[in-house]
Amino acid sequence: MMDPEMPSWQKAAQAKRQAILDAIPQQWRIQHVSPPLDVTGEFIQGFLTSREIEITEADAVAITAQTTSGNWSAVEVTEAFCHRAAIAHQLVNCLHEIFFEDALRVAKELDEHLAATGKPKGPLHGLPVSLKDQFHVKGVDTTMGYVGWIGTYQGKKDDPRHRVAESELVRELRNLGAVLFCKTSVPVTLMAGETANHIIGYTWNPKNRNLSSGGSSGGEGALIALRGSPAGFGTDIGGSVRIPASFNGIFGLRPSAGRMPYEGAANSIDGQNTILSVIGPLATSIGALKLVFKAVLSQEPWQYDPLSLPLPWREDIENLTKRLFTDKKGAASQLSFGILRHDGLVEPQPSVKVAIDFMERILRDLGHQVIEWDTGLCREGKEIASKTYDMDGGADLLSHIALSGEAEIPQCSVEPGKHLNASEVAALNVQKREYQKKYMDYWNSTSKLTTTGRPVDAVICPTAPHAAVIPGKYRHTGYTTFVNTLDYTSLVFPICRADKHLRSMTQRSEFLSELDRKIYEEYDAEIYHGGPIGLQLIGRRLEEEKIFTIAEYLCEQVKLYTGQEDLANPSIDL
Amino acid sequence: MMDPEMPSWQKAAQAKRQAILDAIPQQWRIQHVSPPLDVTGEFIQGFLTSREIEITEADAVAITAQTTSGNWSAVEVTEAFCHRAAIAHQLVNCLHEIFFEDALRVAKELDEHLAATGKPKGPLHGLPVSLKDQFHVKGVDTTMGYVGWIGTYQGKKDDPRHRVAESELVRELRNLGAVLFCKTSVPVTLMAGETANHIIGYTWNPKNRNLSSGGSSGGEGALIALRGSPAGFGTDIGGSVRIPASFNGIFGLRPSAGRMPYEGAANSIDGQNTILSVIGPLATSIGALKLVFKAVLSQEPWQYDPLSLPLPWREDIENLTKRLFTDKKGAASQLSFGILRHDGLVEPQPSVKVAIDFMERILRDLGHQVIEWDTGLCREGKEIASKTYDMDGGADLLSHIALSGEAEIPQCSVEPGKHLNASEVAALNVQKREYQKKYMDYWNSTSKLTTTGRPVDAVICPTAPHAAVIPGKYRHTGYTTFVNTLDYTSLVFPICRADKHLRSMTQRSEFLSELDRKIYEEYDAEIYHGGPIGLQLIGRRLEEEKIFTIAEYLCEQVKLYTGQEDLANPSIDL
Repeated sequence: MMDPEMPSWQKAAQAKRQAILDAIPQQWRIQHVSPPLDVTGEFIQGFLTSREIEITEADAVAITAQTTSGNWSAVEVTEAFCHRAAIAHQLVNCLHEIFFEDALRVAKELDEHLAATGKPKGPLHGLPVSLKDQFHVKGVDTTMGYVGWIGTYQGKKDDPRHRVAESELVRELRNLGAVLFCKTSVPVTLMAGETANHIIGYTWNPKNRNLSSGGSSGGEGALIALRGSPAGFGTDIGGSVRIPASFNGIFGLRPSAGRMPYEGAANSIDGQNTILSVIGPLATSIGALKLVFKAVLSQEPWQYDPLSLPLPWREDIENLTKRLFTDKKGAASQLSFGILRHDGLVEPQPSVKVAIDFMERILRDLGHQVIEWDTGLCREGKEIASKTYDMDGGADLLSHIALSGEAEIPQCSVEPGKHLNASEVAALNVQKREYQKKYMDYWNSTSKLTTTGRPVDAVICPTAPHAAVIPGKYRHTGYTTFVNTLDYTSLVFPICRADKHLRSMTQRSEFLSELDRKIYEEYDAEIYHGGPIGLQLIGRRLEEEKIFTIAEYLCEQVKLYTGQEDLANPSIDL
Repeated sequence: MMDPEMPSWQKAAQAKRQAILDAIPQQWRIQHVSPPLDVTGEFIQGFLTSREIEITEADAVAITAQTTSGNWSAVEVTEAFCHRAAIAHQLVNCLHEIFFEDALRVAKELDEHLAATGKPKGPLHGLPVSLKDQFHVKGVDTTMGYVGWIGTYQGKKDDPRHRVAESELVRELRNLGAVLFCKTSVPVTLMAGETANHIIGYTWNPKNRNLSSGGSSGGEGALIALRGSPAGFGTDIGGSVRIPASFNGIFGLRPSAGRMPYEGAANSIDGQNTILSVIGPLATSIGALKLVFKAVLSQEPWQYDPLSLPLPWREDIENLTKRLFTDKKGAASQLSFGILRHDGLVEPQPSVKVAIDFMERILRDLGHQVIEWDTGLCREGKEIASKTYDMDGGADLLSHIALSGEAEIPQCSVEPGKHLNASEVAALNVQKREYQKKYMDYWNSTSKLTTTGRPVDAVICPTAPHAAVIPGKYRHTGYTTFVNTLDYTSLVFPICRADKHLRSMTQRSEFLSELDRKIYEEYDAEIYHGGPIGLQLIGRRLEEEKIFTIAEYLCEQVKLYTGQEDLANPSIDL
């Protein structure tokens, strides 16, 4: 029952929250359950049939092998994921929109299509795909976590596009045969590394429900980690794909701007083009990540999205990259990697240092070269990003919050600030370009340090200074935002989970900054225990093919070293 | 002698003007000459030896065939162009910087290199290349026409980069073996379709010295039309490569942003990134244009310029395009073209209508399909461009004019206006993207109208509503600016010259706008007689390979129809 004294925005949020739950079929509701901290694996499996477990724990590559050949029906696969997503939402609050009936109708049509023609609709035939709640899908809202957007088109009442328009990515996914079934939670404003809003509350980390699922694509991260979706799409303007990937032990790609079609999606501060938000996939395996990325490119998004570049998947670059680490006779060749141990502002907590050291040991063992990467270059990239996010003094974000008068959420607070003018925006664009040039020159200069004679092939670096963060403690985005300023490509892969038993780090007494000290002091081995950690593999602008290829190779090696079958289910013990 | 009462900015401009003339060797000065209206061809040839004429009237393809094989020495070629450029400047005021001695030193080194190694330095070995005065070349100023920039680095006194730094394009051209020898005139502010500043005065049209050479790359246009340079590079944010190409009867390309490296070049309103200024080549033949464009791409500018895209010359697209108009058996296939007869705001003057009609006849005769292009879509593109140019209320341009206190030049006047804030800039970026999407959808929709089943292959349209314009009468940039807003690729090729004898157009009594009436009334068959006219061949974003390939084909056809050997020397009679 609603409290009559409750402010109207709270009533609206509560009604929407209830509507999401009401969209879950009765037989999939869970009640009187006391979930453990870790609700992945056995716990969530307890709600499912063995067949559902088999389907939902396959990755997108394995699933599409079955669905495109007709071995598994799209309906059965869709139903299994709908069921698991419904449970996931009830455990960690990861969904904004549920449209299982539509999904099952589409799946049925796909099954009929395959039966009638003998051919799959496309490479994603029958694959359920989840979407961050920025993409418009017909029949449902896009709230982006704003209470004032409920029942509107991006805050506009009575707009004919409401529940009718679809984003370009949605159109392409439908063409490819994907089955859309839910939209996932985001922090209000999108500008946060945790996911919280008045509609769904807080999206918890499935591996440790005391921790955050990250943000802003936190719903994607949590849902996919729980295997409630085999693959999905988020967006990243400061780490919003990479942080949830890292915090949930899954894979995520932040491609350079212009590869994935943003056309027709809702956004924060739309039109700000100093640093563009980009769409990136998240998935449970590197193969799945590549499958959906390549599938979207096959739709030639540049024919439909004015900001997309005419760059199909470049197989020549993929092949050239493979030859870098495999010589003509099939023997291993040397690659060279930069390792960024800290960003000059904040050192990573012990659990993340262990992950970096472990990765370095693998690279060295394999005979690759490791170069200490310049820690002095991140700061300016982060500063430019901060100025960019704040260029309108918070006007856009505050206007959407004001629509409903909803209360501030600490992690997503917006400070009204200085509103830049066009000259100041232009000066910021110049600063960004000069920063990109400086970084480019530095990267080029490493050809003098490598034994290959090439500049380093990629850079390894933390995604955040900590494992999946304690709520309210995400204080430093320096490890991800400089990549956005550079518009570099960055792929996050899972490597381990925080382990309270690891040898404690040497006591530190010197710090890079006050923030560094604070984050150091906030390390709590007990609370962080089990929080996933992923690392970034960073390539230069528009080097997605190269980075995918190197990542595939590295992930195979990490599996061999850790003895893990499934990297997206990392063990705590390295 | 200088007038002691003269304002200091006039003295500085006069001293610089004299310094440019002083850089011309004594034996190349011309005096007591009364040049005719048309100083091209026989008139300028009168100052040259037959050998110099042979060299300078070859196009860049023919020249590099001789210089890369050592048949012609780089020194001899360079000297011939220096001589002709010196004469050109004295006839039409097209140069800002002259550095013939440096050029001859470089040419000598190239000759030595070829003698020592047997190999050319690069594909442009020994080719003189001129540059618009936005590119920094060591040893000389970059004034961009601002009196306040004389003796400074972009207006900054005592900046260590002055006369030391070189733009990225300059570095690449040197790598390619090009010989840089002069920088060409621009209108102060760059934001004008005519070329005038207090340093060199007015850059006249070589074909008719009562008319304008266009702008803002007007010096390039005039110099190349006089064969004082075989090829050069300008920039285009609203037509600044295409207008001078059209007005001087030569070839010019406005590629999409990201293909040619702008890094390290001076610019107006640097950092404004709603519509990016782009670098484009100008040359005396389509082959020459392609040669220098491809040569720059071979330097992989994306490794050195953060705004360049990793798009090498795509031979696969070139070959696919060729196959569009030549089927497997070598027979002609049909292409389809949109023809934009007017931009919805201003109809072209009769001379330009004749050029469009002539081009249409050729296309139809060849069996290609011609589709009437939507005249309603240009207006918004032009409006967005205008808002973009003015987004800082003129602050940047006025600040550079204020450095010296120089007087206003009517064609380059800057009205202080509203300074947009970051939200308004973002809204403009959204408007631009939506406009691009609308245009994209329209272009895609033409697949329903063509017999090929493809959307139209390219669009033919005027470059301006008139031939090379009467000074002070460039009132409407609508034919070029919408292309910048769209970021489409556009290649201008010469087709004819205004002919006072042509049947006068049916008397018009209805007009699209007041401006339309004004420009109609300003048509003066007598004054415009002989003014060159070029047409735009427009492709979509980043379709340079396709547009080059279609343009090569069309230019061959135009030659056949007109009986002209050299399109860049168009006859008046069609």
